[in-house]
Amino acid sequence: MVTKYFLGSLREAGDGNRLPSLGEIGLNRFAPHLINRLSASYNANLQELLRPLDLTTPKMRAIALLTISPGLTVNELSFLAVVEQSTMSRTLDALEEQGFVRRQSRADDMRVREVHITDAGRDVFQQFWPVLFGIFSQLFEGIEPDEYDAFIVTLHKVLRNMDKFSVDEVAAKPGDAKTDAEA
Amino acid sequence: MVTKYFLGSLREAGDGNRLPSLGEIGLNRFAPHLINRLSASYNANLQELLRPLDLTTPKMRAIALLTISPGLTVNELSFLAVVEQSTMSRTLDALEEQGFVRRQSRADDMRVREVHITDAGRDVFQQFWPVLFGIFSQLFEGIEPDEYDAFIVTLHKVLRNMDKFSVDEVAAKPGDAKTDAEA
Repeated sequence: MVTKYFLGSLREAGDGNRLPSLGEIGLNRFAPHLINRLSASYNANLQELLRPLDLTTPKMRAIALLTISPGLTVNELSFLAVVEQSTMSRTLDALEEQGFVRRQSRADDMRVREVHITDAGRDVFQQFWPVLFGIFSQLFEGIEPDEYDAFIVTLHKVLRNMDKFSVDEVAAKPGDAKTDAEA
Repeated sequence: MVTKYFLGSLREAGDGNRLPSLGEIGLNRFAPHLINRLSASYNANLQELLRPLDLTTPKMRAIALLTISPGLTVNELSFLAVVEQSTMSRTLDALEEQGFVRRQSRADDMRVREVHITDAGRDVFQQFWPVLFGIFSQLFEGIEPDEYDAFIVTLHKVLRNMDKFSVDEVAAKPGDAKTDAEA
């Protein structure tokens, strides 16, 4: 483990027009870095646990989502599973072949193709859910309900900001701000 | 947006030996799902912003890390950048060719190869940092310092739990717990 992190706080460093440097904020206090590390380790561990079940991460995500929300479309599944639409399409083809999902037209709008979980798909998820729940429990061990709730609230705020996020705006903005050379 | 989420709370559902189902917890309160969504959107946006600079995400991460921590090894960079070691090796080759990093033997242990940022590499990061800081500011808009601090504290707890995480333990455990069929 590397311990050469700089200490510092975003707000103390943010004086006037000058942007605080990454060193001033400190990598350990730079939330995007921590979130990326968490997400990557989580998915690597998950993948290892899914291998014996002959499932991939996108397959498991699709199955999990369809277990709690029957009748999602490919678009919705792709958004919720954070998987590209083309990947999700192929994933559903494979799952249909394995007999874990089936597609049907929506009753009140034949143009919409819904995806539903089959009994076999539900069984597979029931088999895997204790593993997934086990990881989840281990990760949040020692975190009290109130702290967990607050964490979820902040995550939702950031996700809402992310949805409003405009790449153009960010790309245009920084030219106005002065930035200081990093020490 | 899909709004068919189930409501429910982990602790209310966790009675006795029975595991709460994913539907009972609710996808919107299942932190790993939110973290994955956040990480994936963040990286997709970042990639788009990096394209004009002819940088990839691993390249930018390596440059950022070396700006604040000179002399890291490939292993340390790969760990901190959450990039596989082979990818990090290739990334550093490319960065060396672009003149953004250089490798040298560690003064007190010639067997260790350190990576250092060059002046050109530092310039590239100075150019990109306002963009990165812009994304960061947009994402955490409306989140007060205290809330940010609490968020970082929880992220660190989860990361520490992740470091202790044993795949074998999780894979072995769930067999003991009783699980209920999902509604």
